[in-house]
Amino acid sequence: MDFELLKQQKTEDINVFLKSFLPEETGKEAILCEAMNYSVAVGGKRLRPMILLEAYAMFGGKDTAAQPFAAALEMIHTYSLVHDDLPAMDNDMYRRGQLTTHAKYGEAMGILAGDGLLNYAFEVMSDAVCGQGKNAARAMRILAKAAGVRGMIAGQTVDLEWTGKPQTKELLDYINERKTSALLCSALMAGAALAGATEEELSVLKQVGNLVGLAFQIKDDILDVAGDETKLGKPLHSDEKNEKSTYVTLIGIDEAQETVKEFSRKAVELLETLPYENRFLKELLLSLVTREY
Amino acid sequence: MDFELLKQQKTEDINVFLKSFLPEETGKEAILCEAMNYSVAVGGKRLRPMILLEAYAMFGGKDTAAQPFAAALEMIHTYSLVHDDLPAMDNDMYRRGQLTTHAKYGEAMGILAGDGLLNYAFEVMSDAVCGQGKNAARAMRILAKAAGVRGMIAGQTVDLEWTGKPQTKELLDYINERKTSALLCSALMAGAALAGATEEELSVLKQVGNLVGLAFQIKDDILDVAGDETKLGKPLHSDEKNEKSTYVTLIGIDEAQETVKEFSRKAVELLETLPYENRFLKELLLSLVTREY
Repeated sequence: MDFELLKQQKTEDINVFLKSFLPEETGKEAILCEAMNYSVAVGGKRLRPMILLEAYAMFGGKDTAAQPFAAALEMIHTYSLVHDDLPAMDNDMYRRGQLTTHAKYGEAMGILAGDGLLNYAFEVMSDAVCGQGKNAARAMRILAKAAGVRGMIAGQTVDLEWTGKPQTKELLDYINERKTSALLCSALMAGAALAGATEEELSVLKQVGNLVGLAFQIKDDILDVAGDETKLGKPLHSDEKNEKSTYVTLIGIDEAQETVKEFSRKAVELLETLPYENRFLKELLLSLVTREY
Repeated sequence: MDFELLKQQKTEDINVFLKSFLPEETGKEAILCEAMNYSVAVGGKRLRPMILLEAYAMFGGKDTAAQPFAAALEMIHTYSLVHDDLPAMDNDMYRRGQLTTHAKYGEAMGILAGDGLLNYAFEVMSDAVCGQGKNAARAMRILAKAAGVRGMIAGQTVDLEWTGKPQTKELLDYINERKTSALLCSALMAGAALAGATEEELSVLKQVGNLVGLAFQIKDDILDVAGDETKLGKPLHSDEKNEKSTYVTLIGIDEAQETVKEFSRKAVELLETLPYENRFLKELLLSLVTREY
């Protein structure tokens, strides 16, 4: 089947089970659940859960055991966007052409919906760990660390601290390895861990994830200056508006384009050293280079 | 040994290992770790970790396996205070006579330090679950649910939605069962689960925790109108200032006092139906009624 069609079908499958893992909008706290579900529904590509599921399949996983972790990872990714959009952070009112959570539900509910999504990710994973045991515990630990104080939150912190100040490429790498690559790495690693991959195999996947994550972020910076607003669903030049240094401002658009290509090629080469194959996953990772949105 | 002296010693022990579970203030994200550690250091009574450890001991636990969970619970409690204090929520500048996290580090860092503490709680518990196995997974699930979308965050949501509106006692119970009791319940239940308690025993502890939690909250409301500012370390009448209905405004101070006594008595009676004993835990739960701060 055609890659784009297959990806679309897989995205739809993810949206179905993702919804089943989200809270029902019941109880006196229904508005909280509504704000959480709205936040997840606004998000779009389901890239991280898709990578997690494909890594699980690549290492021989055949059942639905990875679904709670894929759902949890998307909740974690979504909470980070909800909190990043808050007035005290990036103060964004729109994402993918729709109101951000705090813009729709108010600032307090933006904070609580984010907290709710982060905590709910661990509620869902705790259930799975109680039911599934050791490999599930490994996967949860991988996702927890990637999202955490030396991972995504560190990236967000350093990004915030340096906004409006001159940055070096080394600093930008430090931020992006944590803010973007950490979750992508964890998607590959957690999926593989669930299927019983060895620590050595996880270490290879970590390198793959780092390369893909950096390529993904550089591509994001490129699209912010040279993309198509309609396809992106958001205005261009947000980095400039927020006074952020990017790979484009630091190394120029041509070298940025080259780096994206090189990192992606290296990532695929590394992936091919593993004794398993997943053609769709390889195409998916490569599509991050060629994406226009 | 005298109860107060023993409690003080146990509090100091908790502070020591709690610190060992918190992140070192290193890396480019050192400021995040500093804000997290500051938030935990400002907090005080360590009631929840103490209850968790005592429940563990009550059910025969003799080693340090409960420490990561006690530390994680205190991190979760602390993150909830940090986010509650934010300008978009209660907008409090002081807690226990010291600057709140956002007042000291700025609003963005208040959000991130709270996120960091919540996530770090699960990083610490994930490590413990990978090392310890099944009972640890049960304990983590108990804490995750209590902190979550049907627990503490639900309580905070409903509290927020109804601030400034006339409330019924039923609504206040709904809020407090989630906002206050849920974590106290989970402290008892998680400690016991770690030591291998049965589901039936956990169910008794849940009732005990609910009674103690409600008594604790009612006492809090009483102290807010009739306490001693110096002992409390915060100004009185904050509920009135925030236009919050409390048990004191709804049922009067006399009935509130009576309810605290009755719930505490019932809680201890229930605790005594269990085939294990922990005299210190009993005294600790009773002390929640007689506390002046």
